[in-house]
Amino acid sequence: CFKHHVMDIMCCGKPSSTASMQAKVQEKSETFKVHLKEKSSQKSAEILSVQYGVNVFLVGLLLMLAVTLHKAGITEEHLLSYLITLMLVQLLWMLWQALRKYKHKDFIKEKDCHAGARWLRGGLTLFAFITLILDSFKLGYFIGYSGCLSAAKGIYSIVHAVFTVSQVYFLWFSAKDVIQSFQTIERFGVIHSVFTNLLLWAFGILSESKHQLNDHKKRLAALGNLTLDYHEPQCNCTTNACTVFASGFYYLYPFYVEYHIFASAMLFVLWKNIGRSLEHHRYRKIKFRSHGAMVGTIAGLIALAITIGVLVYITQVAHSKHKKDSAIILFYSYGVTILTLMSAAGIIGLLIYRVDERPIDNSKNPSRKLDSDLLLASASGSWLIAWGSFLAIICTDKYPPHAWINLPYSLLVILETYAQNLFIIESIHRKHRKTEDEYEVIQRVFSVTNSSSNLLATLHHKSLDEVIKNEKKELPYMTHECIPHVDDHEDNEVHNSTISLSSRRIKLSRKRRILKNIAVFLFLCNISLWILPAFGFHPQYDSGLEERVFDFETWIAVVNLAMPFAIFYRTHSAASLFEVYCII
Amino acid sequence: CFKHHVMDIMCCGKPSSTASMQAKVQEKSETFKVHLKEKSSQKSAEILSVQYGVNVFLVGLLLMLAVTLHKAGITEEHLLSYLITLMLVQLLWMLWQALRKYKHKDFIKEKDCHAGARWLRGGLTLFAFITLILDSFKLGYFIGYSGCLSAAKGIYSIVHAVFTVSQVYFLWFSAKDVIQSFQTIERFGVIHSVFTNLLLWAFGILSESKHQLNDHKKRLAALGNLTLDYHEPQCNCTTNACTVFASGFYYLYPFYVEYHIFASAMLFVLWKNIGRSLEHHRYRKIKFRSHGAMVGTIAGLIALAITIGVLVYITQVAHSKHKKDSAIILFYSYGVTILTLMSAAGIIGLLIYRVDERPIDNSKNPSRKLDSDLLLASASGSWLIAWGSFLAIICTDKYPPHAWINLPYSLLVILETYAQNLFIIESIHRKHRKTEDEYEVIQRVFSVTNSSSNLLATLHHKSLDEVIKNEKKELPYMTHECIPHVDDHEDNEVHNSTISLSSRRIKLSRKRRILKNIAVFLFLCNISLWILPAFGFHPQYDSGLEERVFDFETWIAVVNLAMPFAIFYRTHSAASLFEVYCII
Repeated sequence: CFKHHVMDIMCCGKPSSTASMQAKVQEKSETFKVHLKEKSSQKSAEILSVQYGVNVFLVGLLLMLAVTLHKAGITEEHLLSYLITLMLVQLLWMLWQALRKYKHKDFIKEKDCHAGARWLRGGLTLFAFITLILDSFKLGYFIGYSGCLSAAKGIYSIVHAVFTVSQVYFLWFSAKDVIQSFQTIERFGVIHSVFTNLLLWAFGILSESKHQLNDHKKRLAALGNLTLDYHEPQCNCTTNACTVFASGFYYLYPFYVEYHIFASAMLFVLWKNIGRSLEHHRYRKIKFRSHGAMVGTIAGLIALAITIGVLVYITQVAHSKHKKDSAIILFYSYGVTILTLMSAAGIIGLLIYRVDERPIDNSKNPSRKLDSDLLLASASGSWLIAWGSFLAIICTDKYPPHAWINLPYSLLVILETYAQNLFIIESIHRKHRKTEDEYEVIQRVFSVTNSSSNLLATLHHKSLDEVIKNEKKELPYMTHECIPHVDDHEDNEVHNSTISLSSRRIKLSRKRRILKNIAVFLFLCNISLWILPAFGFHPQYDSGLEERVFDFETWIAVVNLAMPFAIFYRTHSAASLFEVYCII
Repeated sequence: CFKHHVMDIMCCGKPSSTASMQAKVQEKSETFKVHLKEKSSQKSAEILSVQYGVNVFLVGLLLMLAVTLHKAGITEEHLLSYLITLMLVQLLWMLWQALRKYKHKDFIKEKDCHAGARWLRGGLTLFAFITLILDSFKLGYFIGYSGCLSAAKGIYSIVHAVFTVSQVYFLWFSAKDVIQSFQTIERFGVIHSVFTNLLLWAFGILSESKHQLNDHKKRLAALGNLTLDYHEPQCNCTTNACTVFASGFYYLYPFYVEYHIFASAMLFVLWKNIGRSLEHHRYRKIKFRSHGAMVGTIAGLIALAITIGVLVYITQVAHSKHKKDSAIILFYSYGVTILTLMSAAGIIGLLIYRVDERPIDNSKNPSRKLDSDLLLASASGSWLIAWGSFLAIICTDKYPPHAWINLPYSLLVILETYAQNLFIIESIHRKHRKTEDEYEVIQRVFSVTNSSSNLLATLHHKSLDEVIKNEKKELPYMTHECIPHVDDHEDNEVHNSTISLSSRRIKLSRKRRILKNIAVFLFLCNISLWILPAFGFHPQYDSGLEERVFDFETWIAVVNLAMPFAIFYRTHSAASLFEVYCII
């Protein structure tokens, strides 16, 4: 067998006496049985915990629903107490976790190098910092109106601030852990944290929608279309800062919402990693290098600058009836331009991948799988709104002045999201730069086995893929830590083995530069497209088009449901594009 | 290395000349490059197609939403034309598929033995048959009212009947296929079919809810609580059978709904299998043996008989105000009894698994993964309704007469679903009966390697799990077809190697009998619990409890959203429990 030869090179025989070895075999056999038992209880612990989490989440959602409806029975205090309890439970669990880490320094033996990248944790910290500002604003607002607001609101702000600080600390140091001990309790703890964050995210969206709907009603009232019925506290503010705080909420909620969804995504990866046995393949540290993407950066920055201009203009004219229409047309024209450029960039990127022959990286990676799933799921939010507008335009009988530009806008949203998802997912699944493992291994296999007469017999029995997989497992540089491998060593090897490869690298390099430019351009454009809806500019509320075909209330419900996903889509794809930029 | 020894036994060297071998190596290398390229386009084809499917689905949902709202612009004809188009496209694709199969008899080389079990296809055929009856009823109803119903309804019934027959034919012969050619087009075709079926499922639910809400309103009107405003055709029926047809809808829709969700689940597994390279582990054919579960069968049949009695009683008294309350109390008492027994059975099953040491089967199996995911997702429907009732009871100030029994009922629904999910998922992930591969293999490994001095060195480098995985791959009985392996041969081996195993088997056999009884009892109880809601008995509409805390309209929306999942949960867990019964 060709394996003979590989073995002869790889295996390092340690001679030992037969008796001690048999004892060890016995021991191994016992360990194996325990291992099997652990594996079986692991599966049921997984199901147990996920069911618990779903139930916690459903109860929270129902409480929110009841609170929104303002019916008898369930009040906002009930909801806030529930959320505070959940946060306290999570705090206790994180404390226990921290104590364990402090006592047994080495109780985490393995780390998943793909989870919790440094820039992701950095982003989380930034969002958390702004969330803390929001908490202090809320506390200030509560103190101002303390005469007529329930104490639960004040307690909520304080607990939430403590919770935020502790969670960032926890995630900063534990996001990469692969937990192997106390798995059942750990699973419950982590899934509890995932769903607590999801509930706080939903609560954030609810509060934000309330604020935005209030604002929208105020604007409509100013235009004389609607009588005022929005809710404000029933007493006077005792400090001077209440209005400042209230208008601050408007700009801070988007970050609060993003913070919780990021945290729950990182916790979910932590949960997926519990009890996992890692395949030890080499890990390449992601480095951020700014050079080589000048064109994309400049184009992206121009888009960003224009966006901020548009935002400022729209905020200025929001309360004037005549200028409102022109603001909507401006928004759509701006959108059509930027989306056309982004779609073009995405499609060019895909075409480059079509002519590029890089292999796919199919290794198991929960963090990457979650990224792809979240992209697809959150894109559905954009699609739902876009298709709603599209159907409204082609089916309605009365057209508002901006219908002609709403149509291409909606179609471009769908096209751009479609192409961008493909581009991102294809990028993160490719093997980039010097990680061309398979090419290298296949070369080694063939050079080793050239002299073996049993090769073909073996190949008949196994697929080539399996051969390579086994081969890779046996390569001697398997490590148990997140140590980035050294590029140079491998480079030499590749250069020695074939010369044709290096000439190909030069060609690839140009492609790589184009891809890098596309990634950075799309990154900045996604941030631009995040800014407008996150800070409350939703022409879908104002356009008066969709409500002809769908009911006004229903359409607002659809937008309120889908918009958070559409907004999250932009931050999430920006984060993914940043990663794409670094790995290309 | 210990692998040496294994190799010496396994490998069968075929001597061949060096020149021809090198040519073959060259060829293999080329194939490998093509293979890599295919793999990369496969990933993007997957994302391309799933995004297409989601968009098709969203457009359909929005059309349904608009039609439900009865606003200007989008009418039912638009929706029906859209559905008819989707079905025609799927018909074309299935025709193309059938032609290809007819021309190239061997173009499907591999089959996934876990997909599309015979009893699953049998169930599908049964549901499809009843769906055909519904189609003919609809056609009859259309002919009766043809004066005032749009032609789209008639065409829809005809196309749907053709579609149903073709799809059952297609799934009967293709559900196990692992498609390897024309992957991109195939992916589009299959995902189109998945989402077409999902849309038809949603359309079925919509129509059913309309009928049930109409019926509910009629009942309320009969009790004098509400003025009548349900929709009926505006002309007279030209035949005598219209009322018969209309009341037939009521009993036939549940099957229509189940048919489409089953079909889309089977198609989804087909989609997941496209381009997959199967791990060839031995497949055990599932056999249905009726003996050994007498107690469970009798208890289950009693539950089923009582259910039918309850259904008949409730249908009789539905229109009387006084008896309505007693009917609701009867329903809840019946529910509490059956759910208590089911929870107890599920928990006993789980306890048996806790003391049982059977290993977990962790092999990749899309069909099983889908089963677990669907169980968890659809159980959320039950949980949402149950938590809603629970919160309403503990928060409201006015209690209806049946609140005291609604509380334990809601909690038992949650507990029972929780325990049953754990039981089913644990059962389908265990290695049952004579498939104790791992024990066997580990014994073989140790017997072969006893004399090897390098074993421990190797074990240091690899986890035992990997060793076993490799070992299994190399066992000579790998087959490319779905041939069930012969039990007896393996039995002998196991008996020879250890005697202690056979004494353990007798003990296990008693446990197995208990598990079999539990599975069959739960199976029949799930069918019982399916019958009542599927045929339209929803005390959640009538109880007057939840609408105090949640708004009436909102609560109806929640129930209408969650109930289809809760009903699907029952059929799906019945199907899974049937499988569990067969494999234990």
